[in-house]
Amino acid sequence: MCRWFVYRGAPLRTSELLLHPVHSIVAQSLNSPLGAEPVNGDGFGFGWYPVDGDGPPGLFHSIEPAWHDRNLRSLAEAVVSPLFFCHVRAAAGPPIQQTNCHPFRNDGWLFMHNGGIADFDRVKRDLVLAVDPDLYPLMLGTTDSEVLFHLALTLGLRDDPVGAIARAIAFVERVGHEHDVRFPFQGSIATTDGDSVWAFRYSSQGRSRSLFHSTDISDLRTMYPDESRLSLFSDDARVIVSEPINDLPGAFLEVPEASVAILDAAGYRHAAFAPAGS
Amino acid sequence: MCRWFVYRGAPLRTSELLLHPVHSIVAQSLNSPLGAEPVNGDGFGFGWYPVDGDGPPGLFHSIEPAWHDRNLRSLAEAVVSPLFFCHVRAAAGPPIQQTNCHPFRNDGWLFMHNGGIADFDRVKRDLVLAVDPDLYPLMLGTTDSEVLFHLALTLGLRDDPVGAIARAIAFVERVGHEHDVRFPFQGSIATTDGDSVWAFRYSSQGRSRSLFHSTDISDLRTMYPDESRLSLFSDDARVIVSEPINDLPGAFLEVPEASVAILDAAGYRHAAFAPAGS
Amino acid sequence: MCRWFVYRGAPLRTSELLLHPVHSIVAQSLNSPLGAEPVNGDGFGFGWYPVDGDGPPGLFHSIEPAWHDRNLRSLAEAVVSPLFFCHVRAAAGPPIQQTNCHPFRNDGWLFMHNGGIADFDRVKRDLVLAVDPDLYPLMLGTTDSEVLFHLALTLGLRDDPVGAIARAIAFVERVGHEHDVRFPFQGSIATTDGDSVWAFRYSSQGRSRSLFHSTDISDLRTMYPDESRLSLFSDDARVIVSEPINDLPGAFLEVPEASVAILDAAGYRHAAFAPAGS
Amino acid sequence: MCRWFVYRGAPLRTSELLLHPVHSIVAQSLNSPLGAEPVNGDGFGFGWYPVDGDGPPGLFHSIEPAWHDRNLRSLAEAVVSPLFFCHVRAAAGPPIQQTNCHPFRNDGWLFMHNGGIADFDRVKRDLVLAVDPDLYPLMLGTTDSEVLFHLALTLGLRDDPVGAIARAIAFVERVGHEHDVRFPFQGSIATTDGDSVWAFRYSSQGRSRSLFHSTDISDLRTMYPDESRLSLFSDDARVIVSEPINDLPGAFLEVPEASVAILDAAGYRHAAFAPAGS
Repeated sequence: MCRWFVYRGAPLRTSELLLHPVHSIVAQSLNSPLGAEPVNGDGFGFGWYPVDGDGPPGLFHSIEPAWHDRNLRSLAEAVVSPLFFCHVRAAAGPPIQQTNCHPFRNDGWLFMHNGGIADFDRVKRDLVLAVDPDLYPLMLGTTDSEVLFHLALTLGLRDDPVGAIARAIAFVERVGHEHDVRFPFQGSIATTDGDSVWAFRYSSQGRSRSLFHSTDISDLRTMYPDESRLSLFSDDARVIVSEPINDLPGAFLEVPEASVAILDAAGYRHAAFAPAGS
Repeated sequence: MCRWFVYRGAPLRTSELLLHPVHSIVAQSLNSPLGAEPVNGDGFGFGWYPVDGDGPPGLFHSIEPAWHDRNLRSLAEAVVSPLFFCHVRAAAGPPIQQTNCHPFRNDGWLFMHNGGIADFDRVKRDLVLAVDPDLYPLMLGTTDSEVLFHLALTLGLRDDPVGAIARAIAFVERVGHEHDVRFPFQGSIATTDGDSVWAFRYSSQGRSRSLFHSTDISDLRTMYPDESRLSLFSDDARVIVSEPINDLPGAFLEVPEASVAILDAAGYRHAAFAPAGS
Repeated sequence: MCRWFVYRGAPLRTSELLLHPVHSIVAQSLNSPLGAEPVNGDGFGFGWYPVDGDGPPGLFHSIEPAWHDRNLRSLAEAVVSPLFFCHVRAAAGPPIQQTNCHPFRNDGWLFMHNGGIADFDRVKRDLVLAVDPDLYPLMLGTTDSEVLFHLALTLGLRDDPVGAIARAIAFVERVGHEHDVRFPFQGSIATTDGDSVWAFRYSSQGRSRSLFHSTDISDLRTMYPDESRLSLFSDDARVIVSEPINDLPGAFLEVPEASVAILDAAGYRHAAFAPAGS
Repeated sequence: MCRWFVYRGAPLRTSELLLHPVHSIVAQSLNSPLGAEPVNGDGFGFGWYPVDGDGPPGLFHSIEPAWHDRNLRSLAEAVVSPLFFCHVRAAAGPPIQQTNCHPFRNDGWLFMHNGGIADFDRVKRDLVLAVDPDLYPLMLGTTDSEVLFHLALTLGLRDDPVGAIARAIAFVERVGHEHDVRFPFQGSIATTDGDSVWAFRYSSQGRSRSLFHSTDISDLRTMYPDESRLSLFSDDARVIVSEPINDLPGAFLEVPEASVAILDAAGYRHAAFAPAGS
């Protein structure tokens, strides 16, 4: 339904990845070949952590398409960041409003999602009731994704991100099944505390939205010694993205179905993931 | 917190009342002397019933201030209507988004509100839980007013508007008191089924927002025989508004505290109003 | 670059043509198979003449994509009109702002355009200088189309629409050639005084954007006796549109290259068109 | 017509000045006691230079009022900058669009203006004709201020800022007088190359908009030893602003009528200014 992008590595001018690649997330807003819909023009969001690690992540949401947005271009050229998220939306259900734009934020955490909770109108009330009453007033939009984020926060995201997302999706599946929804959850999720990134690929049906991670930069430099743009990136630079942002063979590898990918100081790794424990 | 305007009478070019009066609702968006805040620049809404009575009311919501809005000017000049609502918002709590703009609509009904539910963040969850689950997914914004409308719909607005609003406010007061809110409700409300208009002025504290109704046009013509603009209006033309839209002495009379004003085929009348029956 | 739509006939609820057809102009905003670009998401505009012929045409411009716009849906369902224009934009050059949305208006005239003036940045100044100084301050946006409209107004649009457009395009071609632009003009244009509609299909290269007109309703009823939707339309109902809005074979016929199509009380006709006389 | 704000000093979290002061520029958007109009709700702009001095200034423009804007709040909290501009607009003439929001940018230069060119519709064409044809296509909005900036660029802003502004205003006055405009120019202007800031206060009538500069921080610390917020600022921190952002007596001093104020590595100074040399 949407496309999203994560970068983690040495501080980088964000335009290098958000604007310049041939299939950048901004380009994908107008044309995403691997997306459930080719057009992701229902608003966008950009969240970034500052270089010095001080203060909250910046957040810019807009209800206009990303492809011609002048503010996004200017921001991407002005901002240097070691960790940033970007999301372009294809709304399954309107409305188009800033409070429905990803990434969502809670203190220093960001969260974004591509996919959906099936038959959301039927299950929404039951899901919302399970959100911690203290978190309840913080939900400002109408998306399934924002509810999922607040369910995960309720179920321990800050202390145990993988477990909390497993419990949140298990709860979504249980409520869905109670309402005779066959495949309640679909999607890829990214969340971060500003240091580590957790990216999930899972769907009740076992046919999840596409998800890719970038190859080791040092391997890419060996493969493409003449590719001068590779010198822009630090050795630990990593990207996780709904679909590849360039056409270099081997530059992006698929994150397997039903898995969680982790980016942290130790690099990239992934492991099997399944809903559990709700 | 806001200002609103209601017209009922013979079909009228809406710009005659929305744009041209010296203190029109559009002028009040920038400067409303009697408002709790002088500036009502946090979006606006315009709802109108068509001349032939066929089809749903038109609805236009915008997140921009009304005072310079080109679409509103064009619409107001193009639309002729026998019954229309307009609302300019001063947001007590953001966000500024179309789904937070009044009037709200449910089928052929419109609803708008100036004022607020005190400590809404603390009582919101309890109020929302009382909304009919079938109506629950229709709430798309974050305002207290939209919740109040859906409470009133739940409590019988379509069959008994005065009783349903009385029950809805009584419920708001009860929930508020349970949360130690001293004065849970404040405001003036307008609602219509496209034929009759019900306007309420009430607050828990007994110090409600201002509300006025227009004097009989025939009386005004007698009082102001040289006022050529009065010839624009039919004998049964009536306005209810948060504050007078012109400076003609006697043109507007206050709707009393704790009362409901009714505009219908029989003309204007008002009666005492109090929350009850929840 | 864009897609546009014209209706002329008996007063019709505009949603019947703007929203309901399978390839309506709103659907074309997200996917227009015959367009130079498949996505026309850079704002839109809707202009309509009132039923009673009194007052200026209504005009609604938005910088959001048409496909999910709630105001457009509500307006289209509320407005009944005998003559209306709708345009969805794919911006060759930003910015995306209401003043760049078509149709443009001058008193009772509307004008819209799909296509472009080649190398506009190089020729813009010379074109603007040729606009009547009294009309000059009325140009509020940055599009080639708005300049073309004001050139046509300068060159007599109100008295001789076909001649004025011929002169305006001839002037654009002359200025373009002076700047070594090989094919200065491309596009289809619609303009109206609220009674007759003139639609032009022309390009310097002789390869113009697609343009279609609807078949006689009476012929369509004979061809498709079971098509109940055809009963919505009056015998004189006509549409001119960038591409067909449904898949009924024979329902839409191409307007020939280098021609002007006219809709008026006499029905539909077209004639050869070429720039001339500047 | 507007209010603006300039900071130059050690890198500072921009929210400290844009959001936190009691009369911050964001607060002034809703209520500016010294403004020609108390409400400056017709969009805003924020431009900032990065800490490392590398890359273009960031620029964020919005058509919504500043007072509730969530993007501005987030940006102001995330951005640390040694030199930033902010402007809130009260439009004398619409439209409200991003291309009419200050500050305007040309490469590494920013420019903003409070005030206006009188009878702009009558003189606009003559002024625009004097803009360098290479700069002509860069003007994207409809404001007098953007034209003034491009006149100044045409007349040598990059090499001689004070002289170029003097020539530009002299030209505006000459053209105005040719059109029988009595007092052609009014306003305060700020411009910067990212290092020095030039701020002008001048009007043809000799009754210019208010303009203030901050007192030396070291003097303020002596005056207010208990004011803990003063420790946030470097010794060379300086502000120039349309009106004081706090109520500390002595914290802001008026920039004299008909003068240019300069902020650079040498600190603050001002000198007499008059249009000349056009």
